[in-house]
Amino acid sequence: MRTVYVIGIGAGDPEHLTLQAVAAMNRADVFFTIDKGEAKGDLAALRATLLARHVTRPHRVVTARDPQRDRSAPSGRYPGAVAEWQERRAALYERMLADELADDGAGAFLVWGDPALYDGTLRILEQIRERGAVAFEVVSIPGISAVQALAAAHRIPLNRVGRPVTVTTGRRLADDGPPAGADDIVVMLDAVDAFAAVPADGWDIYWGAYLGTPDESLVHGPLEQVKGEIVRRRGELRARKGWIMDTYLLRRRER
Amino acid sequence: MRTVYVIGIGAGDPEHLTLQAVAAMNRADVFFTIDKGEAKGDLAALRATLLARHVTRPHRVVTARDPQRDRSAPSGRYPGAVAEWQERRAALYERMLADELADDGAGAFLVWGDPALYDGTLRILEQIRERGAVAFEVVSIPGISAVQALAAAHRIPLNRVGRPVTVTTGRRLADDGPPAGADDIVVMLDAVDAFAAVPADGWDIYWGAYLGTPDESLVHGPLEQVKGEIVRRRGELRARKGWIMDTYLLRRRER
Repeated sequence: MRTVYVIGIGAGDPEHLTLQAVAAMNRADVFFTIDKGEAKGDLAALRATLLARHVTRPHRVVTARDPQRDRSAPSGRYPGAVAEWQERRAALYERMLADELADDGAGAFLVWGDPALYDGTLRILEQIRERGAVAFEVVSIPGISAVQALAAAHRIPLNRVGRPVTVTTGRRLADDGPPAGADDIVVMLDAVDAFAAVPADGWDIYWGAYLGTPDESLVHGPLEQVKGEIVRRRGELRARKGWIMDTYLLRRRER
Repeated sequence: MRTVYVIGIGAGDPEHLTLQAVAAMNRADVFFTIDKGEAKGDLAALRATLLARHVTRPHRVVTARDPQRDRSAPSGRYPGAVAEWQERRAALYERMLADELADDGAGAFLVWGDPALYDGTLRILEQIRERGAVAFEVVSIPGISAVQALAAAHRIPLNRVGRPVTVTTGRRLADDGPPAGADDIVVMLDAVDAFAAVPADGWDIYWGAYLGTPDESLVHGPLEQVKGEIVRRRGELRARKGWIMDTYLLRRRER
């Protein structure tokens, strides 16, 4: 039986890697990577660093070309656009698993953050298993997510005593506003400065970009006072590096 | 200036430790531990294992007696009970930091899971800093939380495509029911089988105890069908080991 490891490599700091992830990397014959055809060179560089530092047995790296995803789809169309892209990616992964893994071989996908949080790999592999053409077992290895790196960088707990935390996306925050009753909201994948449209009164924000890397950039304060600075800084950083990866916590102030 | 590391050591598997955590452990002169005076021997054992395996420089372990916390406080009194207990604990920690750390020394607290998620250490240290009697810098090191270990054990993503995830406590679920609009709910610290009182129609549950340890126990299925089994198993496991640490995801089925 083939084994496919989905390994969370953390939010950007090579030291986020767990001992479990290192062990799993050393059980893989093949590392599968996707060429995103865009400025994600930093993930590729981090991946190469991790392989060079930690993998001590012979292994191959197989790279496929990413199917393009329609990121311009309007909000209501978003799940549909993701589903279509997942279909194409599932076909691609299925071919890679069938062609590149021996029947008892082990392959690995290295993913940013944690495989369980806003990453499609587990879902795509499940889809391939359901098709039934290639048999394999999935092993998921948790990794430090940007959410956790954010909290650590600001030295804050995500939750208040006995209270919930909601993790959501920038798109959903932009469409629906802060979820009803949620006072501590972590926002990921915000391409639209959704925080800037939140009624600023009464919220603090803890923001961080490129967390755990030498480019780490942090801002925190009352949303009303710092949102302009965050919008400006996001624009500058995105222009300078060609991409940005950031996340933030919105915390409603106690009344 | 003193440095205090708050290091997340993961959910139970010694291999959850990150490389960053290992490095931080090797910068500490003193490890502070709290004797909870109850059946938390397994955390103590894990901590001893991690120190023996990974710390290569001389270090001391200082143990203090935990102030008792009133866990029988009714729900409305809960934040107050926690606040009083935190006051007592802050006084205890302050004394330990002042007595045991040189002015430029480094100390460490090893905490289950991630310091940012339902752990009081960061909050207590902030309180001590505010008192101003002992000066120190805090460094928070993220760790794999039980939430992540749960998702990995079940090989599932926590979120659905583009949708939020809410993390909450058993007490709050018992008091308020599932948060409005939340379809993917992770529940921690449930001492009351709060899941069993959720209107079972339309929910799936993914449950796990002692995640990442040899005692790991998993159940998943439609809530209506498996809730009885989970209640039974929790009771048996708690009786056998004297304590239980578990968490679960409630996922509303698509209609």
